[in-house]
Amino acid sequence: MNYHLFGESHGPAIGVVLEDVPAGIELDMAFVAAQMARRAPGGSLLATARREADAVEIVSGVFEGRTCGTPLCAIIRNTDMRSRDYEATRWLARPGHADWTGHLRYAGCNDPRGGGHFSGRLTAPLVFAGAVARLALRGHGIEIAAHIRELAGLTDSPVDYANPDLAALRALPQKDLAVLDDAAGEAMRERIVQARACGDSVGGVIECLVCGMPAGLGGPDFDDSVESLWARYLLAIPAVKGLEFGAGFRLAAMRGSEANDPFYRDSEGRIRTRTNNNGGINGGITNGMPLVCAVAIKPTPSIALEQETVDMRTGESARLRVGGRHDPCILPRAVPVVEAATALTMQSLLACGARS
Amino acid sequence: MNYHLFGESHGPAIGVVLEDVPAGIELDMAFVAAQMARRAPGGSLLATARREADAVEIVSGVFEGRTCGTPLCAIIRNTDMRSRDYEATRWLARPGHADWTGHLRYAGCNDPRGGGHFSGRLTAPLVFAGAVARLALRGHGIEIAAHIRELAGLTDSPVDYANPDLAALRALPQKDLAVLDDAAGEAMRERIVQARACGDSVGGVIECLVCGMPAGLGGPDFDDSVESLWARYLLAIPAVKGLEFGAGFRLAAMRGSEANDPFYRDSEGRIRTRTNNNGGINGGITNGMPLVCAVAIKPTPSIALEQETVDMRTGESARLRVGGRHDPCILPRAVPVVEAATALTMQSLLACGARS
Amino acid sequence: MNYHLFGESHGPAIGVVLEDVPAGIELDMAFVAAQMARRAPGGSLLATARREADAVEIVSGVFEGRTCGTPLCAIIRNTDMRSRDYEATRWLARPGHADWTGHLRYAGCNDPRGGGHFSGRLTAPLVFAGAVARLALRGHGIEIAAHIRELAGLTDSPVDYANPDLAALRALPQKDLAVLDDAAGEAMRERIVQARACGDSVGGVIECLVCGMPAGLGGPDFDDSVESLWARYLLAIPAVKGLEFGAGFRLAAMRGSEANDPFYRDSEGRIRTRTNNNGGINGGITNGMPLVCAVAIKPTPSIALEQETVDMRTGESARLRVGGRHDPCILPRAVPVVEAATALTMQSLLACGARS
Amino acid sequence: MNYHLFGESHGPAIGVVLEDVPAGIELDMAFVAAQMARRAPGGSLLATARREADAVEIVSGVFEGRTCGTPLCAIIRNTDMRSRDYEATRWLARPGHADWTGHLRYAGCNDPRGGGHFSGRLTAPLVFAGAVARLALRGHGIEIAAHIRELAGLTDSPVDYANPDLAALRALPQKDLAVLDDAAGEAMRERIVQARACGDSVGGVIECLVCGMPAGLGGPDFDDSVESLWARYLLAIPAVKGLEFGAGFRLAAMRGSEANDPFYRDSEGRIRTRTNNNGGINGGITNGMPLVCAVAIKPTPSIALEQETVDMRTGESARLRVGGRHDPCILPRAVPVVEAATALTMQSLLACGARS
Repeated sequence: MNYHLFGESHGPAIGVVLEDVPAGIELDMAFVAAQMARRAPGGSLLATARREADAVEIVSGVFEGRTCGTPLCAIIRNTDMRSRDYEATRWLARPGHADWTGHLRYAGCNDPRGGGHFSGRLTAPLVFAGAVARLALRGHGIEIAAHIRELAGLTDSPVDYANPDLAALRALPQKDLAVLDDAAGEAMRERIVQARACGDSVGGVIECLVCGMPAGLGGPDFDDSVESLWARYLLAIPAVKGLEFGAGFRLAAMRGSEANDPFYRDSEGRIRTRTNNNGGINGGITNGMPLVCAVAIKPTPSIALEQETVDMRTGESARLRVGGRHDPCILPRAVPVVEAATALTMQSLLACGARS
Repeated sequence: MNYHLFGESHGPAIGVVLEDVPAGIELDMAFVAAQMARRAPGGSLLATARREADAVEIVSGVFEGRTCGTPLCAIIRNTDMRSRDYEATRWLARPGHADWTGHLRYAGCNDPRGGGHFSGRLTAPLVFAGAVARLALRGHGIEIAAHIRELAGLTDSPVDYANPDLAALRALPQKDLAVLDDAAGEAMRERIVQARACGDSVGGVIECLVCGMPAGLGGPDFDDSVESLWARYLLAIPAVKGLEFGAGFRLAAMRGSEANDPFYRDSEGRIRTRTNNNGGINGGITNGMPLVCAVAIKPTPSIALEQETVDMRTGESARLRVGGRHDPCILPRAVPVVEAATALTMQSLLACGARS
Repeated sequence: MNYHLFGESHGPAIGVVLEDVPAGIELDMAFVAAQMARRAPGGSLLATARREADAVEIVSGVFEGRTCGTPLCAIIRNTDMRSRDYEATRWLARPGHADWTGHLRYAGCNDPRGGGHFSGRLTAPLVFAGAVARLALRGHGIEIAAHIRELAGLTDSPVDYANPDLAALRALPQKDLAVLDDAAGEAMRERIVQARACGDSVGGVIECLVCGMPAGLGGPDFDDSVESLWARYLLAIPAVKGLEFGAGFRLAAMRGSEANDPFYRDSEGRIRTRTNNNGGINGGITNGMPLVCAVAIKPTPSIALEQETVDMRTGESARLRVGGRHDPCILPRAVPVVEAATALTMQSLLACGARS
Repeated sequence: MNYHLFGESHGPAIGVVLEDVPAGIELDMAFVAAQMARRAPGGSLLATARREADAVEIVSGVFEGRTCGTPLCAIIRNTDMRSRDYEATRWLARPGHADWTGHLRYAGCNDPRGGGHFSGRLTAPLVFAGAVARLALRGHGIEIAAHIRELAGLTDSPVDYANPDLAALRALPQKDLAVLDDAAGEAMRERIVQARACGDSVGGVIECLVCGMPAGLGGPDFDDSVESLWARYLLAIPAVKGLEFGAGFRLAAMRGSEANDPFYRDSEGRIRTRTNNNGGINGGITNGMPLVCAVAIKPTPSIALEQETVDMRTGESARLRVGGRHDPCILPRAVPVVEAATALTMQSLLACGARS
């Protein structure tokens, strides 16, 4: 399932075209809306005050409640725009944002309001696409769950990659902050509130697990590796600046005898590994163990504190205080986005796998 | 420049087909050989004893010493194979390797000798491809250099991402271990020797910098983002299990006011950033600062210690002692491989950029 | 410039997402509307009575009247649908249409009303996309013009491929039937009226010329050949069942000495060919002569005459009289569609060419 | 199965890399050699006197006689080169060839000897690739056969597209000229001999049928249409300048009531069409009827007669008499090439179809 996002934060609408959608999926709009709601702003003190209904209009590809198999276009109108917030600072490049690079890349013609096409708002149609992918995965026994592993230096309790606690993972979407350790969550919430109070922001790490994927999907080369494909989708999420599979960067300090995941046959005759430091992937191919990927998310670059910058027209130095309404921490809302990119990856892998 | 690697570790040959090669590049074979030599085994106590001449035969795409623009195929014959090393253990899945996943993915038909197509040996044609990309970049004033940032828990001295010491980076290829801090390098060497003595292996982190790339290349979406493209190529290198751009995972513990890279105009009128936590990339697009990416490399999975595993035919439990000749640490030889994948990424970005 | 069409004939809307649009193109909506009007139904006795305003809403990718460079989505609402026309015959496969193949391909889930996504109505967003491509080509001195070379067995006067009469080609869009020979056009019109009177339909051949393209674009392989690319776009137009470049099928009866286009230097020092039987393309690459391609278009499969068919649910034999409103001949409206697909091809070639 | 051809006519070797090869195909080298032999030069008076062993070396992707699933590279050494034939005329653009366009496209750096990468010699690895695709199709009950429909204005007896005579099609590969009507074949042979005697060449039309493909493969859009895919592969064969599906250009003179292929249920309960003017494809999707495509092949541009041309270095007018050894008509050798491109198309369609 390929996806093509379009839209600007303050343009008429944002949306997505999905291609290679399997035909006949019941488009359970209550499920879709629930996924969208997890990402939507306006839910709590932790997030931006911008309120968007994020009502999805299905423009094509669905007939009598089921996917047609032909391209599915969905659009979401932009309704709560306050573009004036941006006018005064239109030519001042916001540090950490894509204002300057977008200006260069598009010869000054891109829509600068609210970040335009670079806006985190584009994750709304991405979550929609992920919801369709999840519906396509229904009945395959595949579960996708993400938690906030780290936030502002605080850590959630670790997941056993080889034997994750499925009940605990399933409970995450009901929580305000997707953490396994509620005490850690409370402390994280405190950090967010503090950051907001200072006009500042915080970042963290989101870790995503996928259980139930068949072994043998993917391939060794850059165009078929599970890791390459998953990374492509995850790194296109704004603010993601790193990712790791399984133990990832922690492998750098391990010995081979510790890092290798020994194989064994379990009581049901399945071949499994004792540990899962490789995150369920060997040589770019799934090995039947839970798939594990974590992404590093930088602190929201939109902060209220005054910052040094330049005027993009003149190149002159300037001081900038970013107006508008922003999240002091996007991790709570980024959890369903990471899951969505993951669902799209998994649906594509399964579709390709059926091919071989 | 697209590349298509082919070959198996113990088959007749390995190689690569390069497409979209710019026409007219002088194929400086001394330069190519020097790059190949940096990766070649047999150089020191730190690496496998397998000795391969790694002589490259250019089969197509070069005429009178220059690239034709048509597909360039290069092959490297496999000469020092000792396939018997693998025969006794052919059906025992080596932990941490792709034996089991390859067996599943290819229905038991893949070449298991020495890892087949999954072998690290495939990085030889990748380094060749990178050398061609570097030749294509010549004259653009672009420099690519990687160092071992971490090895077995030991760290090299940090690089200033905003103002890297170019002289120090340029000196790296002359060193046995590509580190800035030679004392740290000495300690790392010690760790490798110790690991080898124990029949074990160690991993680490390689960090790569690119200076001189123009600003404004790349794009925000998954199919044009600099990060997505770079990651695709890097994650297809065997043993890479994570990557980060700029401060990457360290951003998770920073505040926005610390993580944002403020813009300023330097004395020559160029727009730059004070810090470079974003690794020279905002919104998937280069911002003119040095590009920085680090990859986590797991310890070589081939270790001499006995390991638990299964027989892939029968599913029975088994004990395995991996024969053959292996690197106790692949980082020294992986440095030019990371640079090669980076050079291919940069050449592609520049070629696409010329288009817009 | 990639394009992704979406929509169904009787769904909420149809549209297109354009990617890799050059930034900064003035989106001359009067020009766009004029192109759309050339294809729009309802214009004359020769075409379907369905009337669609075909009002285009630009949803994204345009800011202050110019393209942003980010994905451009345009949608066209479906307004004059009479889906009841189709209900009685929903499960009867219309001969020559994609009802049966769509039913198989999409497991019976595709939207059957008016052909769904297979409808010729999807050529409206294609003409929109072509109009954007033409705007991108403005200032490059490139002209694209198509005429009806053959209709119901009648032929227009031939074009001199090596030295086309540009004034005559430029006058074509003003005509009701795009023919060079108005007497032939009058006879063709008569044939269409006759076919309509019989409840039948007629087909023909549309020939498209492109003047002003630089020499040296394209390549020899299936993924870069001008002919391959152009064919991909043209063959996706409903009802196109063949194509030829330059003299095409007429080459089959020529001798090499007649078919070869000898080179010469003209009075301005340009290298040209005496004849242009190769349609401006040698080895998949433009040679600087006018590009010439013709497409065979089958008679509209929707006819009023009763036809033999089957019921797709039961497989039983049935008789079908197609209701709805249809064109007795789509060639008049297909001329701007062929030009649109051609404009997209040329824009892509120029963009790629800038790369090398 | 993607293919990547490489090599130049007078370089060290030509070859192909195949990706996405199904694992476990028995690589029946006798079958491969038989296919190669059908295309190989040197067989008769009708073809070039150049004799190439065309011995294929499998470099990768095959283990113990079966495909591994990993990229399969095959190379064919160039052995009977007489490059001196070309030296005197190196800078004179041969009319009808890609010398001039290749010179422009590759900035004068392409290998001009014998046409370099543009040479018809590259069809040798294409036939190899097609042979592998045919082996992958074995057991699917799919038959592919091509005949010379027209040669130098003479026509073979027509094929009934709805009910082709399979026995007659199966007998074609045994014939020197692949025609159904041996008397027509005799007359064609005469024309070839005459053309050779005059130092001239002749062209024709090759028609290819595929029986046994399942219905429901392909799609309506330019990136999934059967016609688009098939055309991409066929148009990359040197000398192909047109193609048509089913009745193709003959549809231009038909009425809808004649052109439409009415559906009926046959005695075995299968849904079929009475006629097959659409060549087994509706809306870009297979309908279960035989697939039919014909390609127009121009006369061999290499002729012995003196021709007008220019010197590519100086732009000066010149006279050229092409040396070297050439086919007066490539159709006999092009038949297996058209079948090979067709086999690759069909294998890809089946692989994709398994996915949906």
